[in-house]
Amino acid sequence: MAAAAQLLRGAARAVRAPPALARRSLGSAPPGVPAGRGGQRWALAGALGGLGLGLGLWRWRVAMAAGEEEDEEERLRRRFMAPPVSGLRELRRRRRELRSRMELLIMETQAEVCRALAAVDPGAAFAVDTWERKEGGGGISCVLQDGEVFEKAGVNVSVVFGQLSEEAARQMRSRGKSLKASADGKLPFYAMGVSSVIHPKNPHVPTMHFNYRYFEIEEADGTKQWWFGGGTDLTPTYLNEEDAVHFHKTLKEACDKHDPKLYPKYKKWCDDYFFIKHRGERRGIGGIFFDDVDSPSKEEVFQFVQSCAKAIVPCYIPIVKKHCHDSFTPEEKQWQQLRRGRYVEFNLVYDRGTKFGLLTPGSRIESILMSLPLTARWEYMHTPPESSREAEILEVLRNPKDWVH
Amino acid sequence: MAAAAQLLRGAARAVRAPPALARRSLGSAPPGVPAGRGGQRWALAGALGGLGLGLGLWRWRVAMAAGEEEDEEERLRRRFMAPPVSGLRELRRRRRELRSRMELLIMETQAEVCRALAAVDPGAAFAVDTWERKEGGGGISCVLQDGEVFEKAGVNVSVVFGQLSEEAARQMRSRGKSLKASADGKLPFYAMGVSSVIHPKNPHVPTMHFNYRYFEIEEADGTKQWWFGGGTDLTPTYLNEEDAVHFHKTLKEACDKHDPKLYPKYKKWCDDYFFIKHRGERRGIGGIFFDDVDSPSKEEVFQFVQSCAKAIVPCYIPIVKKHCHDSFTPEEKQWQQLRRGRYVEFNLVYDRGTKFGLLTPGSRIESILMSLPLTARWEYMHTPPESSREAEILEVLRNPKDWVH
Repeated sequence: MAAAAQLLRGAARAVRAPPALARRSLGSAPPGVPAGRGGQRWALAGALGGLGLGLGLWRWRVAMAAGEEEDEEERLRRRFMAPPVSGLRELRRRRRELRSRMELLIMETQAEVCRALAAVDPGAAFAVDTWERKEGGGGISCVLQDGEVFEKAGVNVSVVFGQLSEEAARQMRSRGKSLKASADGKLPFYAMGVSSVIHPKNPHVPTMHFNYRYFEIEEADGTKQWWFGGGTDLTPTYLNEEDAVHFHKTLKEACDKHDPKLYPKYKKWCDDYFFIKHRGERRGIGGIFFDDVDSPSKEEVFQFVQSCAKAIVPCYIPIVKKHCHDSFTPEEKQWQQLRRGRYVEFNLVYDRGTKFGLLTPGSRIESILMSLPLTARWEYMHTPPESSREAEILEVLRNPKDWVH
Repeated sequence: MAAAAQLLRGAARAVRAPPALARRSLGSAPPGVPAGRGGQRWALAGALGGLGLGLGLWRWRVAMAAGEEEDEEERLRRRFMAPPVSGLRELRRRRRELRSRMELLIMETQAEVCRALAAVDPGAAFAVDTWERKEGGGGISCVLQDGEVFEKAGVNVSVVFGQLSEEAARQMRSRGKSLKASADGKLPFYAMGVSSVIHPKNPHVPTMHFNYRYFEIEEADGTKQWWFGGGTDLTPTYLNEEDAVHFHKTLKEACDKHDPKLYPKYKKWCDDYFFIKHRGERRGIGGIFFDDVDSPSKEEVFQFVQSCAKAIVPCYIPIVKKHCHDSFTPEEKQWQQLRRGRYVEFNLVYDRGTKFGLLTPGSRIESILMSLPLTARWEYMHTPPESSREAEILEVLRNPKDWVH
């Protein structure tokens, strides 16, 4: 991130991309795709994936010479899925602030994940929508629908600010936050994050979700509370132990770089959080999850979040590549659809992010509910036969396992 | 209902049907259907519908002679989908109490609706599950899945009692109820109701929902609060004005028998209640809805609820018969699936009954979530073309109309 901030220094001209330029650089909109609500929309062709990760942002930035800053900035802008909400000029001006560094991180994560998905799905075409929030801020939604490998995949960035709604404040207090509002009840907030849900077509490729976010709230006396939250978790239709170990191991390695206590703590938090209480099941086989993390320091937590963000592609994409050509039966597809139904139940009944979104006035509903699968199924009293592969995954969802030690 | 209570008087022997007897009278369980959680399960063949409504409970009861009471009771028992939760003997003992009369009404409504559905769907086979609630009470769930006309239809009866959970009490207080718990926080309650959601296959046949319920709560000082709630509402995929008028007119007539002010009030309440706030749309084209009704008197409200319950079959079944053979395109089926997605959103995010169920320990989740459709779909940013039939129904969902005056 320091490199990205560096890059932005000294650029001489306006950097917010005009829609025409951005549209050109990202490809033309496919026919029949409606325009985003008050925003712009582009399509990112699957071909973009051909650029590959070897030419990823990180290496590319390190390689450049100082004299090429202006050109490089133009290239950086092009590599994002759309211009950042705060504008590159503003991010450059505030380049040492954590808000700016986090906004660049979520923009880079979005671009990196979209490219990695496009690289494995020849039918992938991302619709890219930028949207503004009347009350403050906006976002960029990248959604792929009905590809060859992915049924529906969305990667969203949002940067929103304004006054916390009473409902949202109540929700935060209910999980133990002490928030002192001013006499007129106002609580200014600033929140940003990247979030994604990826639903593949093949029932042998698991669904993956991640979300990394940063939150600031200013209390009545001027005190600023800040915290990070996030996580990455996997929801397979069928259990594959090797995949489960790979996924958890990759996340553990990212955590261990910072503190060996983090993975066990956040692994358990993940199992506890993604619990569909009324079913007595977890949504998936977990991963890591954390919220309200505000120690040891802003810088250290940010560095940790950055490591987690960099682990997303390596923990998931190898599993996609391994199974996306596996054959499957109609019965396996049907079991996937039933599990998708449970995914919907968790997201609409329990998920804190979805609830916060639905409670925050001016939220972009299509971006929040992009997490829902293209299709889902509910059968009354469906019970898989004992010792079946369906019963096997249910057992793990009911009694989470430790995958790495 | 007076007639039903009459019937029960003087019967000489135990009336709770042993499972074997009940199974015999309702047909044998289809292969591959798992047993209900701690309950019994039977299948009611579509052929049962052949008995028709002309021989309905009401007329049949009036016609019988006093000397045939014992036989008649046996026949009454057989006409229910399963033995009542409280047992026929107990209902007879407390026959003058409103609780007993309401339990008979919900049992009769369940049987009447199931028979009417079976009469129009030659492929209909109801799975009948009786279940017990450890904390007190139980229920009977009748679910038809993958018939010829209906994709999924459930008609549930439940009679539950015990201590109100803290969460459920909070939910009630939040809508203005004053509930004084005893020193140890206890609030004994007694609740019963019949509820149903019917999702047809053909996109030209609307989904229908109804629910009629009775609630009692005993406060710390011994005061008993009681109220009725309920409603019947229609969710079409495409607008058919003639159907909308028929549906609303039938409900209005049922209301008008009691007070001409009721229909306009409860029609508006329905439009307000079934509002998917985050979409700015109603779930359907409404009907009637009411809650917390505790005046003018218990007897009068019960009589009103009885009229509403009797209006269910005539308001809906003619619409099913009219359209169940209509031809439809794959695009129309897809639009139905998207609307089913909105149905899921309403039920999981807003519906008070679903929330109460999920918050009440020991609830039977399969019965609560039977309201969810067999299949649903979520497309990112789906917007129907202007002036299409899809846009036409959206317009009415955004701006509810008056169908009868």
